[in-house]
Amino acid sequence: MTDEDQLARKVEPEDETEETDDFSLPPRLFDEVLDAVEGEDAEALDALLDPLHPADIADLLEQIDPRDRKALLTLWKGGLDGDILSELDDNLREQIIADLAPADLVAAVRELETDDVVDIVEDLEPVQQRAILAGLSPADRVAVEKALAYPEYSAGRMMQTEVVRMPEDWTVGQAIDFMRASPGQLPDQFYHVILVDPRMRPKGYVQLGRLLSSKREVRLADILEDSFRTFGVEDEQGAVAYAFNQYHLISAPVVDADERLVGVITIDDAMEALDEEHEEDILRLAGVGGESELSDSVRETTRQRFPWLAVNLVTAILASGVISLFEDVIAGLVALAVLMPIVASMGGNAGTQSLTVAVRAIATRDLTGSNVWRVIRREVAVGLVNGLIFALVMGAIGWAWFGAPMLGVVIAAAMVINLVVAGLAGTAIPVILEKLKVDPALASGAFVTTVTDVVGFFAFLGLAALILL
Amino acid sequence: MTDEDQLARKVEPEDETEETDDFSLPPRLFDEVLDAVEGEDAEALDALLDPLHPADIADLLEQIDPRDRKALLTLWKGGLDGDILSELDDNLREQIIADLAPADLVAAVRELETDDVVDIVEDLEPVQQRAILAGLSPADRVAVEKALAYPEYSAGRMMQTEVVRMPEDWTVGQAIDFMRASPGQLPDQFYHVILVDPRMRPKGYVQLGRLLSSKREVRLADILEDSFRTFGVEDEQGAVAYAFNQYHLISAPVVDADERLVGVITIDDAMEALDEEHEEDILRLAGVGGESELSDSVRETTRQRFPWLAVNLVTAILASGVISLFEDVIAGLVALAVLMPIVASMGGNAGTQSLTVAVRAIATRDLTGSNVWRVIRREVAVGLVNGLIFALVMGAIGWAWFGAPMLGVVIAAAMVINLVVAGLAGTAIPVILEKLKVDPALASGAFVTTVTDVVGFFAFLGLAALILL
Repeated sequence: MTDEDQLARKVEPEDETEETDDFSLPPRLFDEVLDAVEGEDAEALDALLDPLHPADIADLLEQIDPRDRKALLTLWKGGLDGDILSELDDNLREQIIADLAPADLVAAVRELETDDVVDIVEDLEPVQQRAILAGLSPADRVAVEKALAYPEYSAGRMMQTEVVRMPEDWTVGQAIDFMRASPGQLPDQFYHVILVDPRMRPKGYVQLGRLLSSKREVRLADILEDSFRTFGVEDEQGAVAYAFNQYHLISAPVVDADERLVGVITIDDAMEALDEEHEEDILRLAGVGGESELSDSVRETTRQRFPWLAVNLVTAILASGVISLFEDVIAGLVALAVLMPIVASMGGNAGTQSLTVAVRAIATRDLTGSNVWRVIRREVAVGLVNGLIFALVMGAIGWAWFGAPMLGVVIAAAMVINLVVAGLAGTAIPVILEKLKVDPALASGAFVTTVTDVVGFFAFLGLAALILL
Repeated sequence: MTDEDQLARKVEPEDETEETDDFSLPPRLFDEVLDAVEGEDAEALDALLDPLHPADIADLLEQIDPRDRKALLTLWKGGLDGDILSELDDNLREQIIADLAPADLVAAVRELETDDVVDIVEDLEPVQQRAILAGLSPADRVAVEKALAYPEYSAGRMMQTEVVRMPEDWTVGQAIDFMRASPGQLPDQFYHVILVDPRMRPKGYVQLGRLLSSKREVRLADILEDSFRTFGVEDEQGAVAYAFNQYHLISAPVVDADERLVGVITIDDAMEALDEEHEEDILRLAGVGGESELSDSVRETTRQRFPWLAVNLVTAILASGVISLFEDVIAGLVALAVLMPIVASMGGNAGTQSLTVAVRAIATRDLTGSNVWRVIRREVAVGLVNGLIFALVMGAIGWAWFGAPMLGVVIAAAMVINLVVAGLAGTAIPVILEKLKVDPALASGAFVTTVTDVVGFFAFLGLAALILL
């Protein structure tokens, strides 16, 4: 799209539906696109899709029916470019790439920056990978191959290798002259100039705004940014995202094992990584594979959900095993079967609360060796206070419901015990898993609900056996 | 900290512990700081804290004991500046500000950019607000007061009012001369120059990198960025964060109701907002108030956790009500009491999976009117497939465990029913809540587990009553 188009578009609001203000695609657009596809009106389709941002076209492709998608892509020959491919969900991208002619694929990918090519290539089959790599310019191919040699989700994979670097002793004037002399070699987007020593080790960086507002004779070394961090190529994506957010970085150099500059990570990549890490945490906490996408098929989705349900079945059977120890007690007083899920459910919820807070605090480096005992003490205290309040409420309800005061006492006592245990387990389990290098978001949930189910049933039925029979 | 310190620090690695590579604070630092505080060694404390980033000092203050924190702040007179205050958790910041002398508070806040002042001021008591506002320069005071007039979590609150704007007909040379002539008036950080028409309406923006690599005579209108979006002052923070992430924006102008430029939002603010929105979603899904912080007191934490536990108690009692309808059935076959929590638990987990995927997809604008039916069909199909698998497994276990084949049939049938209902409810409930303008992350959990508990118990015990008795 040309700049003039852009200007023209801004003058009149793009559409009038109420949905625009939250940036979701207007439903009307879907109708119009599907009409064009059905009518095989390639011109109308072009006119509808061309003004859209690649990310929005990708969303549209993800949201329409697989059959409509196929028809659209057939009709929209050549419209699918590398920018749209980079924005697609992984599984859908793989499918679409499998259907593309190798020449079209190479043409689409060639225009991209190397870090975006890496994003696309890393998930492909070796045959497709080779086809794309063969189509790149030699310099880009080397850059992509190098990036692929770094571990997945590492700084090496995230970084761009196009870097604007300068000797540390240059002045503002030298910097500006250099950049003006080499427009073709500068990256599409850059916000800082990195200063390096003669051995190519980064020494600091200068914001372009500072550069532009300083006199030509000012030394670059005198207008360095305050906050300067470098990342190692093998640093994890999550740690990089954390550091960008924590230290308000806009871009940061990446260095190899010899501390030499090999690339740069910019905040937009870090923001994407932060988004991915969060998404993964949310989905893992809910027992969904971290990679779930709305465009995944039934088969794929079933496969993602199955493992956690299987784990849950085992823990549920374990809890049932505890109940079966007390079959005689229940046979003697069926009210126990009615009330026991309440104790387990309250414990499970309180445990999930503590667990989620702990998992997030571990991810944001707020829960550390320095405060773990204080946090555990706090969670246990909160469990105790809430436990006592709900014990009173539930004790009264239990008494009133079944007319047996001692039943109220039993459920009240079990409630306090289970909520205290929930606070303890909800904090201690993720901390221990983290120490064992297991992702606490992934595994804690199953452990914590097992503990609260088992303790809940055992405390309630055990106390009932002791007191009531 | 001077630039030389910064350079010096980089030459030798900051510390050798294994924790540095993930950017968490080294435990050794805590010990040394606490030793200095205990020994009342102000000089050692200064030497330890001075090289740290304000965000790290804030983390340290959050993680140490309240008593140690008080002693540290007393010893470290004057060290606490505005940057550190901005980084603190809200509740802790309020506490610390309450203890500060008004003059110290004003001195600390004066150095900040207006958007950071707004962050601090918005949560304070009116008295403290007035004290800070009175201490600001008139221009800053007006900017802060204006920002406070916009709704909380709006673009107006997020934006900086310091903007670099230029007429649309300027050239690169004019732009550079202008910036070089007014270094004092430029913001600390900026990445784009915004072009405005004579009525101050933004028309596009130019990246500083493009500016630096273009010849002086090039017209700014010819090197505009492709991607240009403006936000309204009342746009919600979540929508702004979404748009930055979706369209890979680095900065974007904010306009008033007359489409006139009033400020600019940069990606670092958007990243912070995205982080906050995610955090809120995770915590709300787990039934924790969206504002929970690890440094909150027991009383505060209890208050945050209580409401969701109370809601859960009501839903648990409802589910128990269903069980109590079948007391006679259970009295006739206690095995039912042993097995029934399994059906409810599996349904609850499957429902949470569907729910979490739906809540996230709504937040990322991936689940819309265009694909809601397809997603519901998919979730129901996944529930059916997983339900059938677990029905076979659990049917066999039920039969083997209690030696009653028909008990296996009953639990298998109940499992299928509950997992299908879980997929349906897990998707439909958040979609309906969203339509009703209720945050689906906040309320869906309670509804979905109520449905799966009630349906689980009812299907299992009901079928048992029909088939077994």
